[in-house]
Amino acid sequence: MLRSKADTLLLVLDFAGTYIFAIEGGMAAAHGHLDLFGAMVLAFVTALGGGIIRDLLIGAVPPNSIRNWRYGAIAFFGAATAFFFHSLVQEVPASLLTLLDAAGLSLFAVAGAEKALEYEIHPFIAILMGGVTGVGGGTIRDLLLAEVPTVLRADVYATAALAGAGIVILGLRLKLPRTPVTIAGGTVCFLLRMVSVWLHWSLPTVK
Amino acid sequence: MLRSKADTLLLVLDFAGTYIFAIEGGMAAAHGHLDLFGAMVLAFVTALGGGIIRDLLIGAVPPNSIRNWRYGAIAFFGAATAFFFHSLVQEVPASLLTLLDAAGLSLFAVAGAEKALEYEIHPFIAILMGGVTGVGGGTIRDLLLAEVPTVLRADVYATAALAGAGIVILGLRLKLPRTPVTIAGGTVCFLLRMVSVWLHWSLPTVK
Amino acid sequence: MLRSKADTLLLVLDFAGTYIFAIEGGMAAAHGHLDLFGAMVLAFVTALGGGIIRDLLIGAVPPNSIRNWRYGAIAFFGAATAFFFHSLVQEVPASLLTLLDAAGLSLFAVAGAEKALEYEIHPFIAILMGGVTGVGGGTIRDLLLAEVPTVLRADVYATAALAGAGIVILGLRLKLPRTPVTIAGGTVCFLLRMVSVWLHWSLPTVK
Repeated sequence: MLRSKADTLLLVLDFAGTYIFAIEGGMAAAHGHLDLFGAMVLAFVTALGGGIIRDLLIGAVPPNSIRNWRYGAIAFFGAATAFFFHSLVQEVPASLLTLLDAAGLSLFAVAGAEKALEYEIHPFIAILMGGVTGVGGGTIRDLLLAEVPTVLRADVYATAALAGAGIVILGLRLKLPRTPVTIAGGTVCFLLRMVSVWLHWSLPTVK
Repeated sequence: MLRSKADTLLLVLDFAGTYIFAIEGGMAAAHGHLDLFGAMVLAFVTALGGGIIRDLLIGAVPPNSIRNWRYGAIAFFGAATAFFFHSLVQEVPASLLTLLDAAGLSLFAVAGAEKALEYEIHPFIAILMGGVTGVGGGTIRDLLLAEVPTVLRADVYATAALAGAGIVILGLRLKLPRTPVTIAGGTVCFLLRMVSVWLHWSLPTVK
Repeated sequence: MLRSKADTLLLVLDFAGTYIFAIEGGMAAAHGHLDLFGAMVLAFVTALGGGIIRDLLIGAVPPNSIRNWRYGAIAFFGAATAFFFHSLVQEVPASLLTLLDAAGLSLFAVAGAEKALEYEIHPFIAILMGGVTGVGGGTIRDLLLAEVPTVLRADVYATAALAGAGIVILGLRLKLPRTPVTIAGGTVCFLLRMVSVWLHWSLPTVK
């Protein structure tokens, strides 16, 4: 009963994260002067691309978002939101968008690492799969816009995803209970991301 | 007997569509000043990339064009046509190329949607798979040329593929007979594409 | 016993090739002004991307480098080498780097073709899979840097991989013993690549 409530909450959070990422994809399409179809594609890949790559790599085929039509529908709903309420979405404060994006990233990273572990992937690779789930969609989006993926040179973004995924994998390997471990991993990812934005942290580059 | 004749016709059409798309890929390579190997790669991905992505996503592994060597051979034959008869191909009227391309698109979109349905993919996602089959190859081709895929901002192209796929899925769900449904879907895709070219239709963009 | 020694040698060679390719990926990241995470990603995809694409296409899922965490660890070790010893690596003579890269290419091409054949892929496609294994990683690396993959327009690189893979497939189809066939294929790829660099050979392009 409790388990079922937790599952429902997770699904709702997953849908919410998908919607946030889809809006970001749709906004990127609008900025790139793509048409409505382009917005749908960018929303779809931004929201679901990371999970699809993860599922292909861990052998969970067909991927979750191909199996369950609701994810695609939510992605297109996000595209429509970004496309038809473009000027409205642009008025959303950047700090709120960053916060929502960090929440989505945390969710995807943690859930992605847990799913990889369920498919008996080695813990080290499972952490990477958490990272892929979090940043894979944005990477494909940037590629489709013929840009170097921002995640490859921007500040602490993927690193936060990997840190959150790492905590989850560590906790589960230590047989700690799933729920607090999941929450701890997501919180670390979220806080690391937000603090790094506020303090303008970034990773070292070769001088 | 009749069934077998229809199957043979479908295979011949599939090979013809592959050849057309491969020539387009080879021509794009020539324009991008790639070498003969580049032409082979671009022909291969343009002609077969969409179907490969669809097959990976719906779990039809190895993909059809990896299972059946004839597709690859036809793609390379198309590359060679574009490469060695480059000036000849360039003299083909643009309107004829558009027509042949629209025919290939219709075929791929319809066949892709039907295959997804056979693999028990949800009808809504099956329509998307039809679109992916139609435009996926050209998208990878553009990415390899470091360009924003034209399908994301050009006129009514993917939309035509989705419309044709949608009609097929709708018809099959209504238990209408397969052959007329397939022909209807392909025809709608083809006409929508051709009319949109003639009338310079395009999808809305954010102003 | 002998077999086991040969297997160990192959694994060591495979790890060595992975390390070389990873360093190249990390160097590309440094030149592209990516951060440490970007270097890790580029090292990973350069070293392991070709094998991952091959495994997804032939149905060997999860791919080898997802199954075996050592490959990812070696890739990150290569990234760290390129990142932290950047100026040192840059002092390595270009001719030595070309030689090591050609050795890695030969190894990947030959091993990739053999694996495809083991998975009952048609010999013609198995040769292509050898080529994909050899050049796929560098192709993704270039895409992530928003550049047209050099392999599509540069000299005899993929062609050498295909030639080596072709000899292996031909030899195995003729039931010749595996070890000399593998060595012959790798040697042809290696020599063809090195000679083409020294003599500035390149494939024809459309004038």
